[in-house]
Amino acid sequence: MAGTDSTAKKTGAAAINAPAVILVKPQLGENIGMCARAMLNCAVTDLRLVAPRDGWPNPAAAAAASGATELLDNAKVFDTTQEAVADLTYVLATTARGRGMVKDILDPHAAAREIHKHNSANAEQKCGILFGCERAGLDNDDIALANAILSIPLNPGFTSLNLAQAVLLVCFSWLSAENPFKPAAAPEAPAAAEQQNDAPASQAEIETLLKHLESQLELNNFFRSAEQKPTLLRNIRNFFFRSAPTRQDVRTLHGIFKCLTGNRDWK
Amino acid sequence: MAGTDSTAKKTGAAAINAPAVILVKPQLGENIGMCARAMLNCAVTDLRLVAPRDGWPNPAAAAAASGATELLDNAKVFDTTQEAVADLTYVLATTARGRGMVKDILDPHAAAREIHKHNSANAEQKCGILFGCERAGLDNDDIALANAILSIPLNPGFTSLNLAQAVLLVCFSWLSAENPFKPAAAPEAPAAAEQQNDAPASQAEIETLLKHLESQLELNNFFRSAEQKPTLLRNIRNFFFRSAPTRQDVRTLHGIFKCLTGNRDWK
Repeated sequence: MAGTDSTAKKTGAAAINAPAVILVKPQLGENIGMCARAMLNCAVTDLRLVAPRDGWPNPAAAAAASGATELLDNAKVFDTTQEAVADLTYVLATTARGRGMVKDILDPHAAAREIHKHNSANAEQKCGILFGCERAGLDNDDIALANAILSIPLNPGFTSLNLAQAVLLVCFSWLSAENPFKPAAAPEAPAAAEQQNDAPASQAEIETLLKHLESQLELNNFFRSAEQKPTLLRNIRNFFFRSAPTRQDVRTLHGIFKCLTGNRDWK
Repeated sequence: MAGTDSTAKKTGAAAINAPAVILVKPQLGENIGMCARAMLNCAVTDLRLVAPRDGWPNPAAAAAASGATELLDNAKVFDTTQEAVADLTYVLATTARGRGMVKDILDPHAAAREIHKHNSANAEQKCGILFGCERAGLDNDDIALANAILSIPLNPGFTSLNLAQAVLLVCFSWLSAENPFKPAAAPEAPAAAEQQNDAPASQAEIETLLKHLESQLELNNFFRSAEQKPTLLRNIRNFFFRSAPTRQDVRTLHGIFKCLTGNRDWK
C-alpha cells in the first residue's frame, strides 16, 4: 500500500482492497507513467513491474505520470511474473482473446465483481491483474499463472487500446463496481440564498402558478371549447409538474407569464 | 453515421444508436485524434467539433488517431454548441462537478442506461454527450443546453483524466451497458414514431420555442438590464431543457405563449 503520508491522503483508506496492477515486461517508460496516472484516478495504487525493458527507475515514467509519481516511487520490481504474483490469492490475466486456454473469461465488470467477492470473503486477500507488454501482450506462461482471463469487449472491427487505456478501463470498472466514494453526486453545501433558489418548488407554489396561468389563458380564449379544456389543462399540468421546477424557476415563470401579458393582467 | 464502406465495416450496423460525441472548443489536434480512437474502440462514430482552436482538418489529429481517421474525415464542425446539438433529443454535459446547476447528475453507467432508454423508446432518437476543452471544461452556457450532467466519479484525492480518457470511459460504459453487437430488434417505422405526441422534442424545436420567447420578452422589457439578461436567459434555458419537453409540450407552450401575448406578436 501507499508508503507516504501524501499518497495516503491521495488514495484514501478506501483503496485498501484495490487489486495490484502488474505490468509484465513493459517497454516504454512513458506508458508505465500513464498507467500509474490511470490507476491513481481509480484509487488503485499497488503497481508492480516485471522486468521492465528499459530498467527501473525510468525518468520517462515520472514525466508521463501527471503527479502520480508516488505510485512509481513505490512500485515493486520483479524478475519474473511468478514472483510478482506470489502473495496474491486471485489473479486475472488481461488478453484480447481467450487464447484457447480453459479458463473463465470475464469482462471488466464481471472481473470487478469477482475481485470484490474475493475481498469480501477475506479482507486479507489480495487480488491482482496482469497486463502484457505493448507489442505482444502476455505470453502463455504468464496466462497460466492466472485464475481467469480478463477480456475487454470492444468494437470487433476496431480494437486498438494502448496499455494505459486498458488499465484505465479495468481499474475504473473495479472502482465503479463498488464505488467507495459514492455518493459523488451530493452537492457541496450551498450558500443560504443559493439553497433557497435551488430548492424544489412546493406543489402549492406550482399550483398557484398554474392557477394564474389558467385564468389568464381563460381570459384570452385559449380553451376553444369546454370539451378540450380538461385535456389541455392536464397536458399543461403534466409538463410543469414533471419538470420539477425550483423556487427560482417558479419565480421566473411568473415573471415570464406576467411579461407576456404586457404586465397588465397577471395577478 | 459512417460515410464510407470502410468505416461501415469497422463500426457495423449495430452502432446506429451510438451517441454523438461533441468536443467543445478542443485545443490540441492530437487530443481530437485520441478521442476518435477511443470512440471507435467503442463503436461510437459520430464526432462533432465546436470551434476547434486550431481549425479543421488538423493533421495532428490524424496522426494520433491510430487508424480511426475515418471518424475525423466524417467529423462535423460547428460554430456553436447550439448548432452542434440541434438534431439531438437528449444531451449530457460532462463536467467534474455539478456547478450548482439544478440538473440530474449521472455517472457513466447511469448515463449509458439513460441513453439506451431514450433509444429504446424511439430508434430515431439521437443522444449526444458534450465534452469541454482540455483547459477549462464546458462553460455554463454549454451546460445549460444539456438535459443532465454526466460526472465520472473518481478518486477525490487525484482526479486527472485527459480528454480522450474521459471520452473512453464514457463511451465504454455506453458500449458495455447493452452490447450493440447483439442482433437488434427491427426499428419501428419512423414516420409513425415521429408523430407520437410523447416523442421528445429535438433541441432545435426547443431552441425555436426559446428564441420566440426571448424576442417576445425583449419586446416587453423583461430583461431590465443588459447585465442581467445572460443570467436570466440561462435560467430560462436551463429550466426548459432540463424539463425534457415532448413535441406536444412544445406545441402547447407555443400556444400558451402566443395566447398570453394576446395572439398578436408571436411569430
